[in-house]
Amino acid sequence: MNAKVAHASDIQLTDLGGGSCRKVLSYDERMMVVEVRFEEGAVGAKHTHPHSQSTYVASGRFRFTIDGEDVEVGAGDAITFAPDVPHGTLCIEKGVLVDVFAPMREDFV
Amino acid sequence: MNAKVAHASDIQLTDLGGGSCRKVLSYDERMMVVEVRFEEGAVGAKHTHPHSQSTYVASGRFRFTIDGEDVEVGAGDAITFAPDVPHGTLCIEKGVLVDVFAPMREDFV
Repeated sequence: MNAKVAHASDIQLTDLGGGSCRKVLSYDERMMVVEVRFEEGAVGAKHTHPHSQSTYVASGRFRFTIDGEDVEVGAGDAITFAPDVPHGTLCIEKGVLVDVFAPMREDFV
Repeated sequence: MNAKVAHASDIQLTDLGGGSCRKVLSYDERMMVVEVRFEEGAVGAKHTHPHSQSTYVASGRFRFTIDGEDVEVGAGDAITFAPDVPHGTLCIEKGVLVDVFAPMREDFV
């Protein structure tokens, strides 16, 4: 089959500390999809990268700080980040983000 | 802010007929993220495209047919499709898929 199926239970979970953990769900050279699980109060520290990023809120509630501005998002919301824009998040209500990067993130594999 | 925030309630829903509908959540030239909601029994007809695709199962249960082979996936599972691989799906239990394309799909905007 010219596709790769990853069942949730088989995917390695990376503990990021501070109440969050990450699963790299899928990638090829053009993109990468990553699930990040957050406990309430967990922080995704401010950072930048040259990849395009889109974040989909699968569940929970999050306050993002993007370029110094705060925005709150919940289930079904999505954010498109331009390359190199500084962004970070605080989990307000336990949940799951699906982060998409283009191209893929070499630093995650 | 150098980012675009899309709240679920503000995003246009496209009825695809037969019990499924689509929301384009975010995109730039490198990628596109699309939410597709399926009722039980709804079908995503077999098709191909030159984009890389990753599908994340946010909820529900789906049977995919990929290159003639069947596979069942549920919440938290993910599939990476190579470009041009024929694929389709049948929704077994009402749910939501998050489809990621690289590059973006011009035909969806």
